[in-house]
Order: sequence, then C-alpha cells, then structure tokens
Amino acid sequence: MAHHGYTPDLSRRERVGLDEAVFCASKSVAQIEGILADAAARGTSVLLTRLASEQVAALGATVHGQLDYDPESRTAFFGPEPALKPHAPRVAVVTAGTSDVAVAREAVRTLRHAGEPAREIHDVGVAGLWRLLERVEELTSFPVLIVAAGMDAALPSVVGGLVRGAIIAVPTSAGYGVAAGGETALRSVLASCAPGISVVNIDNGYGAACAALRILAAVDA
Amino acid sequence: MAHHGYTPDLSRRERVGLDEAVFCASKSVAQIEGILADAAARGTSVLLTRLASEQVAALGATVHGQLDYDPESRTAFFGPEPALKPHAPRVAVVTAGTSDVAVAREAVRTLRHAGEPAREIHDVGVAGLWRLLERVEELTSFPVLIVAAGMDAALPSVVGGLVRGAIIAVPTSAGYGVAAGGETALRSVLASCAPGISVVNIDNGYGAACAALRILAAVDA
Amino acid sequence: MAHHGYTPDLSRRERVGLDEAVFCASKSVAQIEGILADAAARGTSVLLTRLASEQVAALGATVHGQLDYDPESRTAFFGPEPALKPHAPRVAVVTAGTSDVAVAREAVRTLRHAGEPAREIHDVGVAGLWRLLERVEELTSFPVLIVAAGMDAALPSVVGGLVRGAIIAVPTSAGYGVAAGGETALRSVLASCAPGISVVNIDNGYGAACAALRILAAVDA
Amino acid sequence: MAHHGYTPDLSRRERVGLDEAVFCASKSVAQIEGILADAAARGTSVLLTRLASEQVAALGATVHGQLDYDPESRTAFFGPEPALKPHAPRVAVVTAGTSDVAVAREAVRTLRHAGEPAREIHDVGVAGLWRLLERVEELTSFPVLIVAAGMDAALPSVVGGLVRGAIIAVPTSAGYGVAAGGETALRSVLASCAPGISVVNIDNGYGAACAALRILAAVDA
Amino acid sequence: MAHHGYTPDLSRRERVGLDEAVFCASKSVAQIEGILADAAARGTSVLLTRLASEQVAALGATVHGQLDYDPESRTAFFGPEPALKPHAPRVAVVTAGTSDVAVAREAVRTLRHAGEPAREIHDVGVAGLWRLLERVEELTSFPVLIVAAGMDAALPSVVGGLVRGAIIAVPTSAGYGVAAGGETALRSVLASCAPGISVVNIDNGYGAACAALRILAAVDA
Amino acid sequence: MAHHGYTPDLSRRERVGLDEAVFCASKSVAQIEGILADAAARGTSVLLTRLASEQVAALGATVHGQLDYDPESRTAFFGPEPALKPHAPRVAVVTAGTSDVAVAREAVRTLRHAGEPAREIHDVGVAGLWRLLERVEELTSFPVLIVAAGMDAALPSVVGGLVRGAIIAVPTSAGYGVAAGGETALRSVLASCAPGISVVNIDNGYGAACAALRILAAVDA
Amino acid sequence: MAHHGYTPDLSRRERVGLDEAVFCASKSVAQIEGILADAAARGTSVLLTRLASEQVAALGATVHGQLDYDPESRTAFFGPEPALKPHAPRVAVVTAGTSDVAVAREAVRTLRHAGEPAREIHDVGVAGLWRLLERVEELTSFPVLIVAAGMDAALPSVVGGLVRGAIIAVPTSAGYGVAAGGETALRSVLASCAPGISVVNIDNGYGAACAALRILAAVDA
Amino acid sequence: MAHHGYTPDLSRRERVGLDEAVFCASKSVAQIEGILADAAARGTSVLLTRLASEQVAALGATVHGQLDYDPESRTAFFGPEPALKPHAPRVAVVTAGTSDVAVAREAVRTLRHAGEPAREIHDVGVAGLWRLLERVEELTSFPVLIVAAGMDAALPSVVGGLVRGAIIAVPTSAGYGVAAGGETALRSVLASCAPGISVVNIDNGYGAACAALRILAAVDA
Repeated sequence: MAHHGYTPDLSRRERVGLDEAVFCASKSVAQIEGILADAAARGTSVLLTRLASEQVAALGATVHGQLDYDPESRTAFFGPEPALKPHAPRVAVVTAGTSDVAVAREAVRTLRHAGEPAREIHDVGVAGLWRLLERVEELTSFPVLIVAAGMDAALPSVVGGLVRGAIIAVPTSAGYGVAAGGETALRSVLASCAPGISVVNIDNGYGAACAALRILAAVDA
Repeated sequence: MAHHGYTPDLSRRERVGLDEAVFCASKSVAQIEGILADAAARGTSVLLTRLASEQVAALGATVHGQLDYDPESRTAFFGPEPALKPHAPRVAVVTAGTSDVAVAREAVRTLRHAGEPAREIHDVGVAGLWRLLERVEELTSFPVLIVAAGMDAALPSVVGGLVRGAIIAVPTSAGYGVAAGGETALRSVLASCAPGISVVNIDNGYGAACAALRILAAVDA
Repeated sequence: MAHHGYTPDLSRRERVGLDEAVFCASKSVAQIEGILADAAARGTSVLLTRLASEQVAALGATVHGQLDYDPESRTAFFGPEPALKPHAPRVAVVTAGTSDVAVAREAVRTLRHAGEPAREIHDVGVAGLWRLLERVEELTSFPVLIVAAGMDAALPSVVGGLVRGAIIAVPTSAGYGVAAGGETALRSVLASCAPGISVVNIDNGYGAACAALRILAAVDA
Repeated sequence: MAHHGYTPDLSRRERVGLDEAVFCASKSVAQIEGILADAAARGTSVLLTRLASEQVAALGATVHGQLDYDPESRTAFFGPEPALKPHAPRVAVVTAGTSDVAVAREAVRTLRHAGEPAREIHDVGVAGLWRLLERVEELTSFPVLIVAAGMDAALPSVVGGLVRGAIIAVPTSAGYGVAAGGETALRSVLASCAPGISVVNIDNGYGAACAALRILAAVDA
Repeated sequence: MAHHGYTPDLSRRERVGLDEAVFCASKSVAQIEGILADAAARGTSVLLTRLASEQVAALGATVHGQLDYDPESRTAFFGPEPALKPHAPRVAVVTAGTSDVAVAREAVRTLRHAGEPAREIHDVGVAGLWRLLERVEELTSFPVLIVAAGMDAALPSVVGGLVRGAIIAVPTSAGYGVAAGGETALRSVLASCAPGISVVNIDNGYGAACAALRILAAVDA
Repeated sequence: MAHHGYTPDLSRRERVGLDEAVFCASKSVAQIEGILADAAARGTSVLLTRLASEQVAALGATVHGQLDYDPESRTAFFGPEPALKPHAPRVAVVTAGTSDVAVAREAVRTLRHAGEPAREIHDVGVAGLWRLLERVEELTSFPVLIVAAGMDAALPSVVGGLVRGAIIAVPTSAGYGVAAGGETALRSVLASCAPGISVVNIDNGYGAACAALRILAAVDA
Repeated sequence: MAHHGYTPDLSRRERVGLDEAVFCASKSVAQIEGILADAAARGTSVLLTRLASEQVAALGATVHGQLDYDPESRTAFFGPEPALKPHAPRVAVVTAGTSDVAVAREAVRTLRHAGEPAREIHDVGVAGLWRLLERVEELTSFPVLIVAAGMDAALPSVVGGLVRGAIIAVPTSAGYGVAAGGETALRSVLASCAPGISVVNIDNGYGAACAALRILAAVDA
Repeated sequence: MAHHGYTPDLSRRERVGLDEAVFCASKSVAQIEGILADAAARGTSVLLTRLASEQVAALGATVHGQLDYDPESRTAFFGPEPALKPHAPRVAVVTAGTSDVAVAREAVRTLRHAGEPAREIHDVGVAGLWRLLERVEELTSFPVLIVAAGMDAALPSVVGGLVRGAIIAVPTSAGYGVAAGGETALRSVLASCAPGISVVNIDNGYGAACAALRILAAVDA
C-alpha cells in the first residue's frame, strides 16, 4: 500500500454507516489502480467520484471490466453491484436547470451505491414557476429532498417554503460572471429565507447523498 | 460656497431629467446647512437622502421649519413641496420582508419628490409563496417594479418569471452571517435565472427610483 | 398591520411543520410590538430570535409579562408555553468551546419551543481530544447532532468520522484575525473531509434547529 | 425529453414577453440537439447564447442548416427568422473599447431576435473624451441605452450625466490584473456617481437586451 | 524613548527628502506626547496625521500651545511653522465630491508642511461633466495633479485623458454598499483606461502628497 | 474602420503627451491587422502590448516586416523606429527577481518607444539584501524608479526608504498560493511603510512607463 | 462548572508542554470568574489573554487581588507567579513600528508566564533600514525570533534574509485602507521571498509565543 | 549572467544556513539552463523546485545527466549529491490524504538536499481518527512535525493537541468548491484552536522544510 500512500478507512461503514469512497480528481491513475487492487483483495465494493473519462481510459483492462462507469456524473462502481432496496424512493433529487443535472446524478449514483432508490425531478427552476407548482404534491411526499441549483439558487428557498421534508441544498458552479464557480449560489442558499435548509459544498452531490443517508439511517433506526 | 466645497449640478434636471439630491451620510451639519442655504437662495427644492435623525436634530431652526423629514427612509424634502402627478401609480415597490421596508421607502420618497405616486406591496418573500401568488395579477399591471430583498434575494427572480414589467432589483443589507452587508443579495440578483432584471447598489432605494424615473421618461416621451 | 409592514405566514406550520418565528435584529420596537399584538389576537405562540436585551427593556409592560426571555441565546417565547415532548432527547447540541455556547442555546431554545428536548454537550473541541473521545458512546446514541464550532471548526469533521447520526454543523463567529466573523469556520465545515455533514449560516442556531426538526419529522412520519 | 433533462418554459413569452433562450455554455452537444429537436417539433424559434464555434461544428447537419450563427457574439437563431420591426432604432448599444464589442453584439443579436433594431456606437471610452462628446446629441435621442465597458467602466457614469434615457450598464470582463474577470467594472458601475444607472451581470449582453425589451414593452403599452 | 517604543527616523529628510511624520491613529496620547517631547528636544518640526480631535483634547497644555491643528484633515503641525515657498502652486488637488474633501485637505496640509503651495479644485465629478470641462485649461497648467475620488472613481480616468501632468489618484472610502470602504474606488483607478495614472492607498492624502513631493524633487533637481 | 470597431485616439499625444498604444490581449488577429493598416495609412508609429507570439505568427507577411517584436515583454513596435534621446537614462527599472523581468521589459520597451533610455537593475530582492545595498548610490542617482516585485513585494518599501526619487511600484503576478495573481503584491505596495510610493495595476509595465513619462514631462517643462 | 460551560484541558501541559490559557474576548465576566475559581481550587496558574480593562474592572475584588494585569498587552497572570528561568533571553521579539508593540507584548508576556525571558527590539521597520542594520549582529544571536509587523509587513522578509534563527512572523492589524485588519500583512508574510518564515494568525502574539515555546522544547530535549 | 537576469545569492548558506534554491515555475528553460551553468561553474549543488516534467524534457543533455529529478514532488537535485546525516529522522512529515503527498514530498526532498532524513506518515486525516490515534506515540517522538492537509485542514489542530513538538502546517490546494486553491485550508490552520501551530504558504513544502531546518539549526547550536 505504501506505493500509493493510501490507508483505507476500513471501519467507516461500521462506524458511520457510509461506504468507502474514493475522490479521484487529484489522484494519478497508478494511485487509483493501487486502491482498487487493495479493494479487490479485500472483496469490498468501492464508489469512485470525480473520475474523468480520461482516467477511465487509462486504467488497465482488468480494472475496466469491473467498473460500472457513468460519464455524466463521473462516478463508477467497482466490484460487486450493491443490491437496490425494494422500497419506493424516499429521496427526491431536484434540479433548477439542465446545467445542474450532472451534480444531481452524482447524488443519485451515491444513493444507488448504498442501495437507495431516488426520484429525479429536473428543470423546475423558479423563473418558470408553474413547472414547480405543478409538482408540489409530489415533492411533499418525500421525507428527504436534495435540491441542486446554480446561479442565484432561488429554488431551495421556494421548495423550503412549500414542503416539510428535510432539504439538503447543493449549490452548483453553473453560470458565468458573478455566478461563476458557484460561490453566489452557495451564499444564497446559506442565507435562505426559508427555515431549516442545510447546505453542502459547491457541486457536492456525493456529500448531499451522504447527508441524506445519515437522515435515512435515523429514520430506519 | 467655498466654505463647504460643494458645486451644485444646476443643469441636471434639464440634462438628465432628475432633480438635484444631496447624499448626507458623509457630510457635516455645516456642509448640509450651506447646501440648503444655496438651494434656498436659488429657490429650488432639494431631496436629502441618508439624513440621520441626529443630523436633523443638529440643523438650525430655520432649516428645520422647511424640512419634511421621514425617519424610516432617512429622507427629507427641503423647499416647496413638489406636486403629485394625478395619474394612478405606475411603479410598484415590493419588499420581501419587514427589514427591507426602509430601503423601499427611500425609493417611494424619491419617486414622490419627482411627483410620481407609487404602490407599496410588503412582506411577500418567497418562503411563504402564497402571499406573492395572491397578488400576481396586481403586480402584472405595473409597467415598472422595484423589488427590494435581502438575504438570498430570491424574490426578484420569482417576480421576474411572473410579470413582463421592467424590474429593478434592490439588494438590501438585511441579515447576518453570509447575508450581512448585502453582498450575497447583490450577487444573487445579478445572477438571477429570470431574464431582464437589472440591479442597483445595495440599499440604494434612491438609485432604483431614479432608474424608474428614467424609464417613465421614456414611456412619457 | 399596515403600520409595521408585516404579513404573518399563517399557514407555515401546516405547510412545512415549523412555527412562525420573528427575527428581531433589524426590527424596531414598534414593529415587534405590532407583530406580538397580532399574534396575541390570533392566540398563537411566537418564537423571537436575535432579540437584544435593549429591545426587551423597551417593550411595553403588557408584552413583558408574556415574554419568557433568555439573554444568553437572545431568544424569547411569547404566548402560551409549548408542551415539552415526553421522550428522551433525540438531538445532541455540541460545542467546541465556551464562545459557541450562545449559538448552541439558540438551537436548544428553538427545539424547546417546538417541544423537543435536547442534550447539551459543551467544550469538547479537538485541541483537547480526550474530552471528546470520552463521550463518543454518548454521541453515537443520538439520531441528530448539531455541532457548533468557530475558528478552524475542526470538531464537526472529527465527530462526523465517529458517529452515524445526521450532523448539522453551525459555524460560529467566535475568534479574531482570519477567524473573525465566522467565514473561516463556515468554509472549513463545508470542506469537511468527513462525509455527509450539512451546514447552516454562521451563528444560525435557529436554522440548525429547524433542520433538525425537519429530520425528526421524517423520523416521526 | 427526459433524455436531456430540459423542460421548456413554453409560456414565457405570454407571461413575461420574452422568447425562450438557451444558454449553451454548460450544455453538451446532445443536450442542445435535443432542445432544438423539441423546438422544431413545436415550430418555435429559439435564441441560443454562449454557443461556442466548437459546439456549432459538432452539431448535426440538419441542425446546421437551420442555424444563423454569429461567431463574434456566439449567438445563433434557430428556426424561422423573426421579422425586424420597421421603426428606427430605439436602443443604442454603446461600448468603451474594442474588447467590449462581443458583449455588445450579444445584446444587439438578442434585440434583433425580438425584432428590435439597435444602433451600435463603439469605442467611445472616456480616456479620449472627445469621441464621446461629439456624439452626445445622438445619444440623447435614444429612450434606452445599453453601455458596455470593462476595466474601470467609467463610461456609464459619464453617459449617465449627459442623457436622460434609461441606462443599462453591462460590465465586461476585458482587462488584466485587478480588471480581470470584470468584478472591478461591475462594482464600479454599481457605485456610479450618476443616478439611475441599472446593472446586469458581467458580460451579460443577453440580459441587458432583455431589460431593454421590458422597458420597450412599458413604452409600447 | 524606551517608554513609548519609538525610534525616530532622524535621517529621513536627508535620505529621501521627506520630513518625519507621525501616524496617530493607533497611538496612545502618552505615545504621542513622548514623540513630541523628543521632537521638541531635537528642535524639529513634526507633521501629525490621523490625529483625532479627542486625542488633541487629551494632549497636555504645553503641547497644545505648539500645535496648529486642522480638524477637517485631522492633521497638525508641531513646532516652528515651515516657510511657504514663494512660487505659484505646482500641484492641483482635485476632488470628485464633497465627501472627498477631507482626504484632499490631508494632501494639501502635507504639501504645506513641506512648504509647497497647492491649488484646491473641488466637486468636479463626472456626473456633471460641464463642471470639469470648464476647468480643463486650468488643470492642464499643473505639472502634478492629485485626484481624490470615491464610489466609482471615474474622475481620474477622465482627467487622465485630458491633461499631460503627472496624476496621482487617491481612492476614498466615501459611499455605501459596494462603495463602502473605498475598495471599489481603488480597483477602479488601478484599472483606469487612461494611461499613466498612479495610485496610493485608500484615503491616503498624505502618501499622495509625498509622491508629489518626490516628483517635484525630480523637477527641482 | 467599422470592421474592427476601433476609433483611434488621434490627438492623445497632443493632449496627454503619450503615444497611441494597442492592448492586444483581447483582440483578434483581424482586429490588430485593421488597426495597423489604419496606422500605416496615417504614417504613425504604434506600440503594441500583450501581443502573444501566436498572434504575431498569425499576422500577415506585410505586417510582419514592419514589426520589431520582443517575445519576453510581448511588445512590438510598428512603423518607423522612434529616435532614442541622447541623454543618460533618467529611469531605473528595478526587479526583485527573475520572474519580474518580463514586466520590467514591458516598461523598458514602452520608454524606448517614447525615446527614453532606461537602466535595468535585476534580481535585487530583499531576501539577499546585500545585492541591493551595493547599488544604493547608483539608485539614488535616478529621478524616477520603476520597481517591479511579486510575492510579498517588499523591495519597493526598502528602496523607498533609501532614495529620494519618484518611485512607481509595479506588483507582479509571480508566485503561487497567496501570491498567485499578484493581489498580495499589489496590496503590499499600497500599504507600504515607506512614504510616497505610487502604484499601478498588476503586471502593468506599460502603465508604469507612462507614469514615468508624465513625470519626465514635468521635469522637462 | 456547568454554569459557565467550560471544561478545562487539565492535561495540556503534560501532553503538549503548554499551560492552560483563557481567551477572554468572547467571554462574560461571570464566565471568567467561574474559570478562575476553578483554577484557584485546583491551585493552578492561569494566563488570560485579550482581557479588556473593562472586564478587569468588573471582576470581583477577590479575583482582582490575584491578578497581575498588563493593560498594553491585555494579558493577566492569575495565581502564583511563575519563576523566570535564569538563562539569557533566547527569543527576540521584534517590531516594525509603535503600532505593533501591543501584539509583541502579548508574546513577551506569554513567554514570561512560561518562565522564558525575552528581548524586545522595537521600531526597526524597513522604511528606515539603518535602524535594523545596526542591530543585525544582535539579531543573529537569537535561536528564535518573533517578528511583528503590520501594513506591508516587509520586516520579516528582510530579517529572514539576514539571520539563521527560526522566525515566526506575526502580522498585525495596524493600518488603514488596504492594510486595515491585517489581511495584507498576513498575505505578505505568507508570500515572503525569504525562505523558512512561518506565520501565525493576525495579532496572535500568544500563538507566536507558543510556537517559540515548542521550538525551545525541541532545543531543550 | 546578464542574459538570464539572475543574481545568485551566494552567501545565503553562510548568512541564513539554507542552500540556494531555484523556483522554476515562472522561469524559461533558457533561464534555468543559465542558472545551472553558473552553479556548475561555481561547483555548487542546487535544489530546483516546481520543475515541470515538460521543462525537464526540454533541458539540454548535459544538464540532464546531472539532474536527480523526482516527478511527484517536481524537485531536482543538480550537482554533487549532498550527504545524508547519519542520525535518525528528526522531522515527521505527515499528510491527511493521498492528495497531499506531492506537497509532503517537496518538503522531504528539501530536507534530503540539506542532508536531513525525514519520516513520512501518510493518510491519517481525522475523518478516520483511529489511523491517527494508533500513531500518537510515534508522532510524539519527533521534535519537529510538518503537517500537510487540504480541504478543512483539521489534522494540524488535532495533532497540535496531542504532541509537544514544533508543528509547521502546510495547507494544500487539494479539493473543490470552497476548498479549491487551498485558501480554506490556509485560513483553517491559521485559526487553529490548538496553540503554537505555525503556517507557511499554500502547497509550500519547500518553505515548511526550510522552517524545519531553521529549528534544527537552533537545536544543533
């Protein structure tokens, strides 16, 4: 393991109820291969996030065969496919616009890797409010909502005033000028006028899904 | 005039259609008295903005008698009261919450000083969306809307998706943490997902009213 | 109601499961009195936040008699005391240091106003790690944890690696230099290396409690 | 439609008087093709903004034949060419320097897509003031002026002191050092010493044109 | 001297041609008294800047008698009055508005302490351009111009395009919202579209005067 | 001229004593060619700045033959070579380190285009103070010094305490981490503890040279 | 102890070699009294930092008698006076200017509370370089140097190029404009061109002393 | 030497005890070759940092043969290999995660170039606290610890509360969203709740090693 400087957090699932995941954005192909070899040896399934298609292409053939890669969300499942829980989706993943879909998919895939089905509801940003209002009843039925929005990120505030579910806002980096990079969306959701919205890092679909899983663990307990 | 270092912009009304106004926040009482004495000598009416009640209290008795001071908006009219135009209000001044009212009043008073009546619509922030939806028809009837909102400033985006009038957003400094000072509200409205919203400086009710007056001048031309 | 520009969000409890609350920081005494008079007429209980002791002192005697004011958290209950739910605390409110206690108390009081008991665990910042490690088992027993920390805000990350409960981090404005105002604590918790931590605005104990109440609603459903 | 996650805002023109537009910067070629196929099926004309020439090159041949693409402004018209209104230009689009022309063209093209002719006046930045002073009379004749400027963005302030038309300032990202990205230009126009200037996001020629269209709608009503 | 922790830079005039000056904003009354006692013992004249009237009032009577204090600029001369050079002013100190006058006076007083006369030209901000254009010929006659402006600080750019003298811009902290504190004015003058404008710290009238004195030293050499 | 949207500022030299210069960073090759064709027609010499070698390579052969291009400073002279003034250098261009040399060369080339010789003194940053101290006498002999420094930009402060010449500091973007982009160097020189240092935009060698030329014009007058 | 929410880190000295200290800036008088009562009961000596004179005045008489308070550094020793180690000072505490002395004193007092003598060297900022150069030999003799500087904070860089001792830079909040609050000084020392300088938080004399004590512990081991 | 504008700081080792090092990020291949030719002529060994593999590939064959290049840390040794000191490692270089390893290696290589052996301890971030707690005894044995961490950088605070060694924190630029670029990690370590942690620039492994070498010099003296 010394060659790739990675000490897997083997007891994480036991301690905090979340699987081991590997953030690939700043890792070399050699490091990723080493980590997956370790996982294969341990027989554990791994979720990979921020895995660029260039990185996927450079991985060895053995690894390739075991990867379920989704280019839109840049996530991959390595190892045995986790079973999908048989209940109806308990998490709605909602986006304001097309540009937020990739982030939402990262959340959906993270939930899927934990066996949790999710409902995707796209393109209901507040500039065309009727698209959202038509679906209020549907939204109200979910105990947990992940709401991804960039630019002014007004959507989580409006949703927060309409439903009683737990709301995790994911600001996205979509946009330009003052919106570039997602800082405006982040600050907007933190300053939301609707009470009880909590927030994760910009573009952090993975983190939002983990927060949802912690809530579902509380529901299941 | 040398004693207070102020050169009045006498031809502003003629050139740009807006009256002379005096921003009092960084001026001494002596400077304000000098400016008003000049105005009195010229027989012109003056709008004073950001005039603190402490400054009002310190002004000489002669000046006092000629001031129509409104403490909430910290504005004053000096000199002959301008006539109110007889038509129905063409500008709606809308606020998200109670904390935005003072800024809205600065806009209303600036419009009033120019003879323009305005309709005030308060406390229709998006966290309780029904308050806004009940008034969409009313909002739709105005050619110009000034929308003041702090915190996440989601209101202008929602209004911008509902009406076709010209919308001038005024971010306000209400709030704390990331909302403190109004920078988040400012960036949020600049990044609005609703098209065609234009923006003025934080807490700048005066500037929003001036922008509205420029639009009404175009309408009247 | 026109005199204080406040439109109460009467159906909020029904819609989103949270009581009406009044943020007092930017409101005048007259505005607060008007809001409370409305609430008294409607017979509803109100939670007041960011209510300074100077504001309390200036409120009329009638109001005074009906206020349960806590100076540390700057919160007050107005109207009939809500009943405390009889179950054991399901929310732990944890602080890194003494400077974070006031923020934590705002959360505790907001929970109390909703009838939810809470456990307070103070002064377990990571610089003296043994204080935290001694209480891991206790922390593990809560489905929801609110963790308030300022400065480098390392505590939520460490807690997030130890327990499986839902974690809501509240960055606080304690500190000086780069820590002043809480921006460093905020960014630190958003960038947490522990997965699934969600975050609210700086010093927003109220918002953290509302997020906790949304989660408990999911648990109770 | 599910494959590209796009819910068109079909009633936008009816509600707010502005056509549907597609911001292409963060969309894949597949997403754009899907959106245009939908539009073709509905028989509507679409304005595409921030469409890179690389994206254009990658679009299918069918789409290509229906695109009127302008590389400087990175805009395209898809579908039947909208008719140009027969009146003289009512909007002047003014730039401080050559670097601002692309942003100005985005505004001109957006206006053109709505049928509005515009007058372009370039390179009249204040460092060579005579260039602007020679054209004051011309500028005065327009009810609406869009003024694009980067760096210190002094031009809108000077124009704002010379004419009575409605002024929409577009800060641009031209420049380097403190000017890089347009934040300085943005803040400069927001802090303008000339009253009644309103502002849109950095490089947002599209938004400025939409704001102008809202004003012209008020004029036409 | 040890009691006030101050090591005077005795050879500064000889080395760099500028007198010793004492920045009083962060010094105690005791520290200032100690410094002045040292200066009195050495028989040197001292310029004090950022000296609040409260500090002046707290200084001992002996010191008082030797101070020539100007409350507007918060400067004082201590010790023998320096002689005024007999030539015409070679430095014009120009302001955009009344709020910039105090900063301009700090420059004028610093020049005066060095024996240099200066011409003050106030309130010629670009929103009323005719005020400036009337005085172009006068401005052209000065080899050095100090231009103080806050808010959008457009004045130095316009002046820089009209005259060939050396221009030192002093951004001021006048204004509110995005203008508060002077950062916008600072960045605006650094990004000026007029070539060859140099800049000093926000509100730094003293530094601008020192820069002017360095230039005059070059002229005199 | 309409095809490249460029209105040359023909009277700049007469008005402000500085030649026309073309900032090429945000211009297309076609725009540059158009500008040079105009200049050739007028028979004037042009200074081009921020001209990338890729742009040079793309320019037509005719233009190529008339360009004196310096890749390090990314400047070019177009048209007849300006005569070098016969006097000894009056401007010293000083750098803290190798990384600042390109910026310094832009200043040297700008001076050269105006006929002013300059002395270059490189690599005298304060971390090896003896390198600077050995040259104090030399530095003292110049009426104007341009000092380019990145990172902490301590050099201008030290030079400012040693010489009486006019000092124009150019912060550079050299460095990484907190130094990246030059903002730290900029703020450091603006906050300099040495009096009378004036500052231009980050990496703005051209502007520093123009400021020097304004000072030399005062010296020559 | 529950009443003041403070869990003392009793084993800190044993673990990390540093005494318990109490940061008083955000604590109430009641909280401080409770902490000191606990310390008195345990018989331990306490260092109090950021203790305002108003807080001292409000403390009870019993506490007062046991406090050794220094108003300049706002520090106090509570309990038995720690013994001063008999060796010569091993730490030099150096300041650039008078405004940095209070921060330096906080470091000196913290060292003193740990028994370490320190040498203070004040007012040797680089604008008057001879003051520093005269003392290079003295500075070279210290194994550890704490260097406090505000504004452009050039001093640590110059010292770092002259001596081989360990250097801990303390940026201070002295100054105005871009220097206000110490952010510029902080970034400047982090970007220092002299290698091996390490940095603590703005105005953090206490932390600098603790870092020095850690180094001296290594020396003593 | 004039051709590459580099004045080597020949006496640095003698003065400050640190070898000459060359920061290659902003240098051309020609400049690097010139510097190495000089060093070869003087017979000195040089440490090169931030040397990209593209730069290495472009260097001439002669230079190549004398370079010991490490691609992970982007460092190279040029000239005779320095001898490794025979004692056990006195510096522990600790990382929170795999993404921080490259920065840690820059520190290890800098130490190695000075002859100091170091112990590397990787991947002990606080989200899996047991990994760190298992190694506390080992960590306690080092007089100096360099701790590299990105994102929320909680590791240095936890280490600082566990050991008494001198701690130099290196914030790294690993991460995305609010963590991107390392600013959050930097501010987090500066605000650390553990006393006596000192900090260097983002990703500055070289500087951290130099700070360690200064401390070891004090230990050795």
